[in-house]
Amino acid sequence: MSNTLGKIFQVTSFGESHGPGIGVVIDGCPAGLKIDREKIAADLARRRPGQGPATSPRNESDDFEILSGVLNGKTTSAPLCFFIRNRDIDSSAYEERRFTPRPGHADYPAYVKYDGLEDYRGGGRFSARVTAGWVIAGSIAKQILEKIGVRVSAKIVEIGGVQENWERRIAEAVETGDSVGGIIEGVADGLPVGLGEPVFGKLDAELARALFSLPAVKGVEFGEGFASARMLGSEHNDPYKVRGGKIVTTTNHAGGVLGGLSTGMPLIVRVAFKPVSSIAQPQQTINLQTKEPVTLKTEGRFDPCPVPRAVPLVEAMMAIVLCDFSLRRQACFK
Amino acid sequence: MSNTLGKIFQVTSFGESHGPGIGVVIDGCPAGLKIDREKIAADLARRRPGQGPATSPRNESDDFEILSGVLNGKTTSAPLCFFIRNRDIDSSAYEERRFTPRPGHADYPAYVKYDGLEDYRGGGRFSARVTAGWVIAGSIAKQILEKIGVRVSAKIVEIGGVQENWERRIAEAVETGDSVGGIIEGVADGLPVGLGEPVFGKLDAELARALFSLPAVKGVEFGEGFASARMLGSEHNDPYKVRGGKIVTTTNHAGGVLGGLSTGMPLIVRVAFKPVSSIAQPQQTINLQTKEPVTLKTEGRFDPCPVPRAVPLVEAMMAIVLCDFSLRRQACFK
Amino acid sequence: MSNTLGKIFQVTSFGESHGPGIGVVIDGCPAGLKIDREKIAADLARRRPGQGPATSPRNESDDFEILSGVLNGKTTSAPLCFFIRNRDIDSSAYEERRFTPRPGHADYPAYVKYDGLEDYRGGGRFSARVTAGWVIAGSIAKQILEKIGVRVSAKIVEIGGVQENWERRIAEAVETGDSVGGIIEGVADGLPVGLGEPVFGKLDAELARALFSLPAVKGVEFGEGFASARMLGSEHNDPYKVRGGKIVTTTNHAGGVLGGLSTGMPLIVRVAFKPVSSIAQPQQTINLQTKEPVTLKTEGRFDPCPVPRAVPLVEAMMAIVLCDFSLRRQACFK
Amino acid sequence: MSNTLGKIFQVTSFGESHGPGIGVVIDGCPAGLKIDREKIAADLARRRPGQGPATSPRNESDDFEILSGVLNGKTTSAPLCFFIRNRDIDSSAYEERRFTPRPGHADYPAYVKYDGLEDYRGGGRFSARVTAGWVIAGSIAKQILEKIGVRVSAKIVEIGGVQENWERRIAEAVETGDSVGGIIEGVADGLPVGLGEPVFGKLDAELARALFSLPAVKGVEFGEGFASARMLGSEHNDPYKVRGGKIVTTTNHAGGVLGGLSTGMPLIVRVAFKPVSSIAQPQQTINLQTKEPVTLKTEGRFDPCPVPRAVPLVEAMMAIVLCDFSLRRQACFK
Repeated sequence: MSNTLGKIFQVTSFGESHGPGIGVVIDGCPAGLKIDREKIAADLARRRPGQGPATSPRNESDDFEILSGVLNGKTTSAPLCFFIRNRDIDSSAYEERRFTPRPGHADYPAYVKYDGLEDYRGGGRFSARVTAGWVIAGSIAKQILEKIGVRVSAKIVEIGGVQENWERRIAEAVETGDSVGGIIEGVADGLPVGLGEPVFGKLDAELARALFSLPAVKGVEFGEGFASARMLGSEHNDPYKVRGGKIVTTTNHAGGVLGGLSTGMPLIVRVAFKPVSSIAQPQQTINLQTKEPVTLKTEGRFDPCPVPRAVPLVEAMMAIVLCDFSLRRQACFK
Repeated sequence: MSNTLGKIFQVTSFGESHGPGIGVVIDGCPAGLKIDREKIAADLARRRPGQGPATSPRNESDDFEILSGVLNGKTTSAPLCFFIRNRDIDSSAYEERRFTPRPGHADYPAYVKYDGLEDYRGGGRFSARVTAGWVIAGSIAKQILEKIGVRVSAKIVEIGGVQENWERRIAEAVETGDSVGGIIEGVADGLPVGLGEPVFGKLDAELARALFSLPAVKGVEFGEGFASARMLGSEHNDPYKVRGGKIVTTTNHAGGVLGGLSTGMPLIVRVAFKPVSSIAQPQQTINLQTKEPVTLKTEGRFDPCPVPRAVPLVEAMMAIVLCDFSLRRQACFK
Repeated sequence: MSNTLGKIFQVTSFGESHGPGIGVVIDGCPAGLKIDREKIAADLARRRPGQGPATSPRNESDDFEILSGVLNGKTTSAPLCFFIRNRDIDSSAYEERRFTPRPGHADYPAYVKYDGLEDYRGGGRFSARVTAGWVIAGSIAKQILEKIGVRVSAKIVEIGGVQENWERRIAEAVETGDSVGGIIEGVADGLPVGLGEPVFGKLDAELARALFSLPAVKGVEFGEGFASARMLGSEHNDPYKVRGGKIVTTTNHAGGVLGGLSTGMPLIVRVAFKPVSSIAQPQQTINLQTKEPVTLKTEGRFDPCPVPRAVPLVEAMMAIVLCDFSLRRQACFK
Repeated sequence: MSNTLGKIFQVTSFGESHGPGIGVVIDGCPAGLKIDREKIAADLARRRPGQGPATSPRNESDDFEILSGVLNGKTTSAPLCFFIRNRDIDSSAYEERRFTPRPGHADYPAYVKYDGLEDYRGGGRFSARVTAGWVIAGSIAKQILEKIGVRVSAKIVEIGGVQENWERRIAEAVETGDSVGGIIEGVADGLPVGLGEPVFGKLDAELARALFSLPAVKGVEFGEGFASARMLGSEHNDPYKVRGGKIVTTTNHAGGVLGGLSTGMPLIVRVAFKPVSSIAQPQQTINLQTKEPVTLKTEGRFDPCPVPRAVPLVEAMMAIVLCDFSLRRQACFK
């Protein structure tokens, strides 16, 4: 009962990794937006696996179909529904290890929660596959944000502890049958001052919630983040000045958000991803039925690092939240 | 329009720092809970300023009144309303600096957002004072959680970069008219397996959102958190084993949550607080009306470090979220 | 968990008939609204019992206190909290008949639902007393609506089947220890075209839901309502014409709403109230503990007819819903 | 932003009359429910047009596809998505009368609301076609309710003012190019005592809201409904007695709901439908661009009476709401 995100710009997710497909319903998109299919396809391509050594060999074309909400290429204010059919599905590996939960995955808590009735094939509802729908919603959100001068972007900050040459770091992990994590930084430029709501609708709080919805995320921080815990107030506070007639801060330790409201400075968030849970090395688990120990050798198709494909995901979640807040201040909802 | 937190156990916050008082409405508390006023008072006392060198000199007794929802000392299923009158109010300092926003505070974005119509006295709705109501709600939530064997606690991990002897670290900051931040770790023991909802109601995502609602929070991480970004999958994955007939993990790098669901292991979250924004040192700001530069010397009553008083706040936000999720699985709502 | 009404203009109700008092939190009121205390008091006076033969002898002054959200007499965008203390409370009658549910009241289903833990004194949470808070919220909503040219009013259409001289109809009921029902018609003038949302946020659907929240309501209809079921399409359809440069309909059988959207014509709704359930005549009930039949003679302080005092309630619920929809189209939420 | 109904059992509607198709996402369906496709098909067949003189000639097979949420024929707790492709589409009539709003339809307010950007073909989002998705959701809800012994059914009470032989009444309307309305009564048997929530989540209020979401509904009443406004309290109150060890009322004037809670007696609701707005007789409208008067002769494919096809719709909306409330009391949400 928690597959919807947003208050005004509402994104409802459906679909599983090995079911008929993945979809998303977007409710609250203003009428008259020209849907740019190329941009959506480009964002999906950035998330798509099967493109290189650092990504999963699953071959998906991610052709999406628009099931509702568009007339003559433009939104009508009716809910948009996008659907991507799953094509390249092989569930056999999951049948074999049905009762041997993979360490680091949601297998075990999901099995307990749903009494074994959950769709376990390919991670089912917990698969990163479902985020394809979120990328589409994020792409629409970015198109709305562009119209009001807000630009969202994300980039890799580090992988496996290194800030450069991280492709080699991933290759090393692949060689040893291991996986690595990393950090992505997202930035939003052009935000108006005062986006966000006190006290339970803070901009950073809603962004954090959306970003923690992404698979493998273990930490979120804004501005100086955890480093701010070691700073003095005199170091951390951002002084105000006037530049070009506009009030700005001389530094941006806050990362563009104070008291849950945007300050007009660039919004900066960093997201920590744990290493991918699926590794080729043998791991210890138990059989859920017999409670006997089992040495698991995960096979299938996986990324050794979640970070490269997660860049458009961070952008998408940021864009969805920022679009939701932006629409609250627009007279869009006649 | 964002002063309510929770889906089943709903907490609505109202009140300002220098208004008549601070309150909270709690909707969704099951009938028949004996309200332990002593426990509430004890939690409020831990949050209360004016108790030592590390806290604000504001003198508040935090006597609370129960305005609704209780009959013969027990809840009735009707909404509970708690109210704490503000007593020790001096708004004069805020009148003087009405148009000179304090660096690090929400003054500037709030002024822009509300066209200067917001309650600016004592930080108004952005004041940490409003969290007194959340402590009450958290105390009720802890009383409900205790009944199902869940215990929530928090402790200071570091202040100003030091893990021990941090009282001295605060004293040093006071001497130089400065402030320091720090990190609090929260733990929930006794959680059932499978609390949380995929995909937009993940346990960690909802906890992060609630914790980012606390003033001065700049980062939230679970388990290994940001450190996990530098670990290998073979290091980070928690192997399963059976202990005392129960399935557990041999390590708990995940911090008790996988795929947004509780694993049954202790839930561990760390929260980074920036240093308090109000410092005695002169700071650069501008006059919002004249746009002239102003050197601000903040006076008033402030804590040099937000962390000591925030310990019960971290507990409160964790308890509110965990209670909300727990009630979803109980047959409480006849 | 259902004490909040509205999406943007959110009204949270708390309090019981015989508890400390009755209150309401209003979240989403734009900043800068001058609170007219006289208008609120006047609306409360229209709802107040103890004013004549047709109303309950309970003596309440309905003095309200503003607990939050106002600075210098104006709203600040922070949640407003209003509170009315209960004064004239006599719960003795309720103690006596604790286990003999009154026919027509919520006593029996509430007792079963809450295992006897509900506040039963004076009807507790089910008492019409709680609507005092809604009148305050409605009064605020009317003040907001006035600013955009929308006027909400309600009047008695019939009581006990008669359209005139209904005060005598009530007096007759009092004489025989009986009670009567009636119908109230509410009208909203000055609505813009297109208020409301397809498909699950229709203007009439949301109004009906709010009006059915009032005690004793058994039917709601718009325009011709139930009579439309007996009309031909050629009779019922409202033809369009241009009058004074404005598009209007020559008739208004629809009651100002088509497809869930306002048409710009007066919105007309009729609300049917059953007779008050508390009557002086003996009634058959059972003892919930012994399951023995009991002849109940209700004593206490009750109105013989719910309709006169419900006129400001119908206005209040209409205003709350219309304000909620109106704010969605305004650029109020910076 | 209002295309979702329900709090626990959440139904999100998408699709338009002349777009790719009609769909529904159902979030909150417990895991392990065997989806009975035959029952869904049977409910859809009852709603389908093109079956006789009283229904529209549009030929739709209503074959639905399950896009998500099912594994081996059973629900998994993941959101269900159902989709019905539109096949028999002819939009030419709508192009011609784009700027001449049909009396009684949402054409005019929708045009104003969306600045002409709405999907106008076949009524677009306002078409009764969208209710096909709701029938599917209602069918699922009925399957859940059956498991707890709740049965929902609806029947025609009157059409065009006559209680019998109403097929002839419809035929007469067709002959004169006119349309007729009518009344449907819905009944829910087997409800537990205490379903519903005070004060803004009353069972009757939520049912009314859902039923007013259906096209052409102008009135909703429970039990004696509008007739209760003319009854005395001594007539209307339902006395309690014990029958077979169970507490029941000797009459059921209340229609099974008191104070917003189910009483355990049959829940009875009546829904008034206006005559279909599309008629063959000429009607007066205006051209929205020129503001010149236009005599409109509606052509296309329409039902002369909305009532026969609305019977499964009334059942569906009742089932969706009752399922939502029922799941709140079940320990379904682990």
